[in-house]
Amino acid sequence: RANGLKKPIRWFSVPQLFRYERQQRGRLREHFQLNCDLIGEPGPLGDAEIIALAIDVMRGFGFTAGDIRVRVSDRRVLAAVLRARGVPDPGLAAAYTFIDKIERLKPAERESFFASPEVIAPARVADLEAVAAIRGWPALDAELSRSPASAAAAEPLRQACAALDAMGLGDFVDVDLTIVRGLAYYTGTVFELFDAGRTLRAICGGGRYDGLLQALGGVDLPALGFGMGDVVLGELLRERGLAPPAHSGIDVFLAAVSESELPGLLRLAHELRDAGIRVEFALAMQAVGKQLKLADARGARLALVLGPDELARGEVMLRDLGAKSQEPVAMGSAIGRVRAALATDPLAQQAPVPLTVHR
Amino acid sequence: RANGLKKPIRWFSVPQLFRYERQQRGRLREHFQLNCDLIGEPGPLGDAEIIALAIDVMRGFGFTAGDIRVRVSDRRVLAAVLRARGVPDPGLAAAYTFIDKIERLKPAERESFFASPEVIAPARVADLEAVAAIRGWPALDAELSRSPASAAAAEPLRQACAALDAMGLGDFVDVDLTIVRGLAYYTGTVFELFDAGRTLRAICGGGRYDGLLQALGGVDLPALGFGMGDVVLGELLRERGLAPPAHSGIDVFLAAVSESELPGLLRLAHELRDAGIRVEFALAMQAVGKQLKLADARGARLALVLGPDELARGEVMLRDLGAKSQEPVAMGSAIGRVRAALATDPLAQQAPVPLTVHR
Repeated sequence: RANGLKKPIRWFSVPQLFRYERQQRGRLREHFQLNCDLIGEPGPLGDAEIIALAIDVMRGFGFTAGDIRVRVSDRRVLAAVLRARGVPDPGLAAAYTFIDKIERLKPAERESFFASPEVIAPARVADLEAVAAIRGWPALDAELSRSPASAAAAEPLRQACAALDAMGLGDFVDVDLTIVRGLAYYTGTVFELFDAGRTLRAICGGGRYDGLLQALGGVDLPALGFGMGDVVLGELLRERGLAPPAHSGIDVFLAAVSESELPGLLRLAHELRDAGIRVEFALAMQAVGKQLKLADARGARLALVLGPDELARGEVMLRDLGAKSQEPVAMGSAIGRVRAALATDPLAQQAPVPLTVHR
Repeated sequence: RANGLKKPIRWFSVPQLFRYERQQRGRLREHFQLNCDLIGEPGPLGDAEIIALAIDVMRGFGFTAGDIRVRVSDRRVLAAVLRARGVPDPGLAAAYTFIDKIERLKPAERESFFASPEVIAPARVADLEAVAAIRGWPALDAELSRSPASAAAAEPLRQACAALDAMGLGDFVDVDLTIVRGLAYYTGTVFELFDAGRTLRAICGGGRYDGLLQALGGVDLPALGFGMGDVVLGELLRERGLAPPAHSGIDVFLAAVSESELPGLLRLAHELRDAGIRVEFALAMQAVGKQLKLADARGARLALVLGPDELARGEVMLRDLGAKSQEPVAMGSAIGRVRAALATDPLAQQAPVPLTVHR
């Protein structure tokens, strides 16, 4: 399949995922996850595109650079600066683990972290602490100046960050080598999104996994992407009052004075619905006053009251439930009048979306 | 919770569901299902509302009464006509099973269906066959005339069908007592949606389950609803060519003549995206001609080409990829010009939805 698709392939999915482990805040046994991947692009603009997408999803919810932060690193950079500090290649994985966990280690636990400290020798724990303390480009540049190999390894990350700057998203991004990501398949850029106050787990994590597709028996294509679950995101949205409101209100309530008006009410109700207007009506005969109480409870702005006298004149009463005013309108123009009244409503929750019906 | 909600409660969910059984066409081990329920309304207008909703979902996809049919029955009616034919109450469940399966039974299998035929005596298999053969109201009315109890039992179904007629949906509805629904919890109306040619399994099934909520330890509220899976529906949509197209095209492709224009390209690309315009650009430097080939492959209508000369004049080249014409536009008015060009495009797939950003 991949061979038939024009590269780069831009891919997303929203699966429901399950974990068999103890639940924690922000990490449930069941969640939905937005996965976005870019397949077939090895260069740093691809990294910038994927990170920009994660940021734009958050901006779409209303978050700013004051609310959320992207912490970005690069496995190639981390390896280079650790090598420059003296960590031998066989010790890199252990050093990654230390740096990944350093924020959760007490100072006293750091010296005893390595059962055999020679695994990172001649580098010492203090070297790893220094690397983990790097924040931002000036500090990283100072570290990179220790070896030309490090400086070269940082070029992709530098270009990705420059592209994010050019997109106007630089404010969201912090370079931070403690972002390691536990998964061994990452080969380059790695990043995580956090709430700025760091009170929650990561909102999103991702990175470049250039060797993974081939390792799993697929095509040999560079790739990168992220996964963003709905659990931490949902907590943050609720915390900030940014959760999109669930609209359950209606536009128009239809009331019949007596059972004889019921067929006319049902016809009009269904025509209004076909016009994309949200309609409800009493499902059992009740006094009009009681029906209009349900209209209020549902948050209806308008009511259409069908009575025998109006119906005999081919009319229906259009009632503004807010203004408590009403006027008779011709049955044939009721939908147009309702639409016009809703269009002038500053509280209208959404524009009607007519049902597209093929007849 | 139910006590705090204004009745009737209108409820829907779209869970992903799993079955542990052998897969068949139209019945997979995993599917999504739209569930719609109406809780707290015992009367036939509630039945009409739920059936109308199922029909309207199908109309929303573009199906007509020539494409899909609603087969509707009522457990109360079936029980009454079977009693009038002589089936004793202890034999009703067995008679339901026979009628439920009759379409799949060969004539020779019918007489031997009941291991003990006396379970339905004094009624005979021929009585059940006669009941199962009833289609439409005239035939049902003839059957109901056998007993006043049957006629009374049919009133709710008659009123629900009359309401569907008044809504303009009567064309979709067939009365058919062979719709039994296997689940024992149904207490009244039962219905299923089928493709008109009956080549597929049911698209949707539902009915009234007035005793179920209390039986499960909840409140004593009448309720009814339906479940509509995505498997048969998906097959039917594909078969009829009604599956909503998956838009993966873009509106504008941005191309840079040389690397120096890249920051300007990235800024403009991101501004266009914030305006809701679908944008792509080459993620690695390539000749403009090669970049525009990707633009064509993505179905872009427009391209914005940034070159050193135009950029020096504060301009960008707006290229109509269909008309193969181009003109320079001021950088500051590029978004407006793109939006205007897309608005006049008869092939435009959708209106831009600007990103709502809180700054």
